[in-house]
Amino acid sequence: MATNVRPANMERITTPALAKQFIDEQIKELRAQIGNKKVLLALSGGVDSSVVAALLIKAVGKQLVSVHVNHGLLRKGEPEQVVRVFRDELNANLIYVDATDRFLNKLAGVADPEQKRKIIGAEFIRVFEEEAKKLINSSPLGESEGAVHFLAQGTIYPDIIESGPVKSHHNVGGLPEDLQFELVEPIKLLFKDEVRVVGEELGLPDNMVFRQPFPGPGLGVRCTGAITRDRLEALRESDAILREEFAKNGLEGKVWQYFTIVPDYKSTGVRDNKRSWDWPVIIRAVNTRDAMTATIEEIPYPLLHHITQRIITEVPGVNRVLYDLTPKPTGTIEWE
Amino acid sequence: MATNVRPANMERITTPALAKQFIDEQIKELRAQIGNKKVLLALSGGVDSSVVAALLIKAVGKQLVSVHVNHGLLRKGEPEQVVRVFRDELNANLIYVDATDRFLNKLAGVADPEQKRKIIGAEFIRVFEEEAKKLINSSPLGESEGAVHFLAQGTIYPDIIESGPVKSHHNVGGLPEDLQFELVEPIKLLFKDEVRVVGEELGLPDNMVFRQPFPGPGLGVRCTGAITRDRLEALRESDAILREEFAKNGLEGKVWQYFTIVPDYKSTGVRDNKRSWDWPVIIRAVNTRDAMTATIEEIPYPLLHHITQRIITEVPGVNRVLYDLTPKPTGTIEWE
Repeated sequence: MATNVRPANMERITTPALAKQFIDEQIKELRAQIGNKKVLLALSGGVDSSVVAALLIKAVGKQLVSVHVNHGLLRKGEPEQVVRVFRDELNANLIYVDATDRFLNKLAGVADPEQKRKIIGAEFIRVFEEEAKKLINSSPLGESEGAVHFLAQGTIYPDIIESGPVKSHHNVGGLPEDLQFELVEPIKLLFKDEVRVVGEELGLPDNMVFRQPFPGPGLGVRCTGAITRDRLEALRESDAILREEFAKNGLEGKVWQYFTIVPDYKSTGVRDNKRSWDWPVIIRAVNTRDAMTATIEEIPYPLLHHITQRIITEVPGVNRVLYDLTPKPTGTIEWE
Repeated sequence: MATNVRPANMERITTPALAKQFIDEQIKELRAQIGNKKVLLALSGGVDSSVVAALLIKAVGKQLVSVHVNHGLLRKGEPEQVVRVFRDELNANLIYVDATDRFLNKLAGVADPEQKRKIIGAEFIRVFEEEAKKLINSSPLGESEGAVHFLAQGTIYPDIIESGPVKSHHNVGGLPEDLQFELVEPIKLLFKDEVRVVGEELGLPDNMVFRQPFPGPGLGVRCTGAITRDRLEALRESDAILREEFAKNGLEGKVWQYFTIVPDYKSTGVRDNKRSWDWPVIIRAVNTRDAMTATIEEIPYPLLHHITQRIITEVPGVNRVLYDLTPKPTGTIEWE
């Protein structure tokens, strides 16, 4: 699929049958493109990279090498799910890298949002590059049989529309010149809803296929200010409680995006008749059509009370729960 | 009224007639106690000190010298109301001291809640003491005619119950030894609801008589962290909007206590298509019987949206509005 323009007559993939047809075509095309060479993929566990991985596993099996970098900023249970689905169930060639310490050490004491994003992005490239080089050292880079010749990416059509007409080799910006891969982008002409239909047909679990959008820097932008391990843990636990309660109460799938934030700020509270000095957990739950504007979900009070009670009871270091009432504008969906 | 114990047969003041009877008795007693000497009163504008002021004005007129210290941490419109009601309407002998700069300069850079409270308390005593001394320099201290012999206070019965049996001279703790006043505490055997009935009978305005409890350090404990003038202004304006909307929408009088907090913390937002980096305003609205436990008011979403829209539109430096969902425990009513 050489072109970056979606053909006018391309049918929208809305049914299992259309998804199956797309998958069968892609398997043929991928096999023709890849031959007996190797393909590298940064597998985040988001729907796009997961669908690309599942397609490539079907097409070229263990010629796909997926690298899952756990930067320590993933949601509760996510790295475990990636390993379970891809290594255990789909029998993929998966390299799991726990880089938590590397990332958190680099981020220690860094409060500036831009600086944090840069560190996370740069460190991600560095970890991925190291894994790529290890792989190349065990098998050549280039055109020969078994060479690591391809880099697969979960580019989708909105990415292409947003970034303008021409996009050539390695758009994992930041990889060094000596790592020149040919790109494999099997879903680059699909819209998000089509990716999901394809993902379901590929047998990926629902909570992977219908996963909420999750920022690249992960929980890093929701542990606002300088990240610490204990506050990151409070964030991960409170976020898991929110997701669990939304799922139980019919809000999963209904609300576009929801998560918690734990700011680097404390207030007085009282626990066991003693003064406490702990963090608040902030709940964000928004609906949007286009992400340019957003409104908040009107979470019913009984559920708000229940979530609040669970968070202040179950999450160490937290004494308050707040609901962010701000529409976009003047708020953004994320806090930094 | 020498005793600090409420007689078992004292009737609860619940009607205008009972209030009038109490007022008439007090006027007689106060005239007998005070004679032709002067009485000093720190008039905050809260219901207790306001009722004491109005009683004393009725009893001894301009022999009462009320000192209203504006520490810069009062709510919007409050110092103006004190001047209007007492100086203009009741023709009181009122000394208005704008000590805003003194307080805010002392508080600059001080983030620790305990330290802030101590500074505000100590500075308050100092300002009041200075005014007392000025007054004594123009008229003697002691037993002679025209001397400043008395200090009036808005002590009420719960204060006495809380602080134990004996309470003698000047419980404005912190006044120096050379300022020895005899105390005048005309409402010390009354409960809060009785003070309100008396206040109404005295003709004080409703929003003074039914004023929500307000902490001594004022907005200082709600401009959390180190106080700055711009953030204090954002707090005062957002608090005024909240009070106005609660009054308009039938929540004034229904909700026990409600106010805003502006923490020393910023987040990303968007305004006029540009990134903003501004404070959140936190809404607190709680109900309680005994202040030992509290639950939040379930403010209807349409009103929350309206208040949010007003605050993010009208208050400079603010890009978000949050609702504090925390019951007490684990939250306290105030944030520091």
